[in-house]
Amino acid sequence: MHAFDGGVPHERATAALGAPGFSRASARRRGHRLSDDPGPHAQTLAPTIATSGSGLVARLHAVGEERYHDKHPFHQRLVAGALNRDQVRAWVANRYYYQKQIPVKDAAVLSNLPSAAHRRVWISRIFDHDGSGGERGGTVSWLGLARAVGLDEDEVLSERAVAPGTRFAVDAYVTFARTRPWIESVASSLTELFGPPVMERRIAAIIEKYPWIDPAGLAYFEDRIPLARRDADSALAWVLEEATTPEIEQRCVEALRFKCDVLWCILDATALASGVFA
Amino acid sequence: MHAFDGGVPHERATAALGAPGFSRASARRRGHRLSDDPGPHAQTLAPTIATSGSGLVARLHAVGEERYHDKHPFHQRLVAGALNRDQVRAWVANRYYYQKQIPVKDAAVLSNLPSAAHRRVWISRIFDHDGSGGERGGTVSWLGLARAVGLDEDEVLSERAVAPGTRFAVDAYVTFARTRPWIESVASSLTELFGPPVMERRIAAIIEKYPWIDPAGLAYFEDRIPLARRDADSALAWVLEEATTPEIEQRCVEALRFKCDVLWCILDATALASGVFA
Repeated sequence: MHAFDGGVPHERATAALGAPGFSRASARRRGHRLSDDPGPHAQTLAPTIATSGSGLVARLHAVGEERYHDKHPFHQRLVAGALNRDQVRAWVANRYYYQKQIPVKDAAVLSNLPSAAHRRVWISRIFDHDGSGGERGGTVSWLGLARAVGLDEDEVLSERAVAPGTRFAVDAYVTFARTRPWIESVASSLTELFGPPVMERRIAAIIEKYPWIDPAGLAYFEDRIPLARRDADSALAWVLEEATTPEIEQRCVEALRFKCDVLWCILDATALASGVFA
Repeated sequence: MHAFDGGVPHERATAALGAPGFSRASARRRGHRLSDDPGPHAQTLAPTIATSGSGLVARLHAVGEERYHDKHPFHQRLVAGALNRDQVRAWVANRYYYQKQIPVKDAAVLSNLPSAAHRRVWISRIFDHDGSGGERGGTVSWLGLARAVGLDEDEVLSERAVAPGTRFAVDAYVTFARTRPWIESVASSLTELFGPPVMERRIAAIIEKYPWIDPAGLAYFEDRIPLARRDADSALAWVLEEATTPEIEQRCVEALRFKCDVLWCILDATALASGVFA
């Protein structure tokens, strides 16, 4: 699971290219109301790209190696067990605003997608965060983490603990999704390529280093890991299919850098608000 | 000139209320093409509000006392002479992005104003920054400061030194101006109430503490002080006129807090990017 840690994780990228892109079986299992007939464009949604795009895949992974938020001092202190309770709480309360806005961002992307077939795939992300068919979504799970670290739910919902810098960064992400060409928004979501191993390390670190946190609160990350892999697979397939010119490739790389900057700035704001950079 | 420094500057606020709001004579002197006939709504643009709004004026000034960016550690180090050359350059290069976007913000406000009479007043702000009739504007003056601190103009224009956090904060300000009710955007501009004394202290500190900076580069601030006073006077008159309910008052106070957060986050990002918070 640490395959991303040194250099470009070529094996993982290759595996992603051969993946089905989106598992409707697992979506049904989670209660998503996706059509059984993905339509005539289904072929374009999960292309088999064995011989092209490897340069772009390497460039995308290089962005993660350089600036995914697991490199941020705040995150490094989190997994080292070096944060105090108020600092952990500041992280959960600030990131709540990001969690809350993810489905807003995904709805904005949805509104710009070029076909019903694309929308059938992407819409699952909104169910994942908002919940569906009696299943809690990611936002509710995040509030479970908030309770597990000792935060009052109403206080979190009030957003009083959200630093302005967090808000500006998250709002920039939503604006990006509303206003940029859809493939750039999809490319910006590819931080999910880097998320699963980081979430696994984060879970292990929290269980080991913060015994005062109820492990039941970690369900968000446990639920999220397979979904992130699924979402990254399908988004990567679309990006590889659409990035047919060096200019589009470049814009996709820049979109992913932008998204890393969003996540990084959330931790900057969290660190400043909680005295980590005092 | 330090009347703002301790408690609520009541004398200054009262003076502002009695001011004409906008001097067309000085606008003409600066080459602005404002109509000589301000139209039937002119009276509403510079009301004489002697008996109302004093509670709101106090609340607005309290926002500045609490969170105007002269309280930020980066600014405090700037005026104390404690920044090194690269840190001063980081400030100038980051704030360039703010300067560049001010007329964009003002054009967004302009597009939401309720009358030609309002637009005749506000449009001067765009000339002030973009230049007009052969007079350089504020953005060109800011590039003069960039040269004075040893920055290459093309490097500044490339925006490579603009931290993502600076960009997110400034973009949030432009989005605010595009999307909020016009009186909130006008209220958000009231940081100019607090600017002139801070600019005067900043000029003195730079001359005294940073002898390596060519004082000719300080023209931006010297030009800006009277314009900021003029703009603050007219904007405050509009806010006092429009804030006829506690709800609108509250939204105007929150708009000014938001704007202070924008300026504060620019310095957060600048400090983080230049090692001041290392």
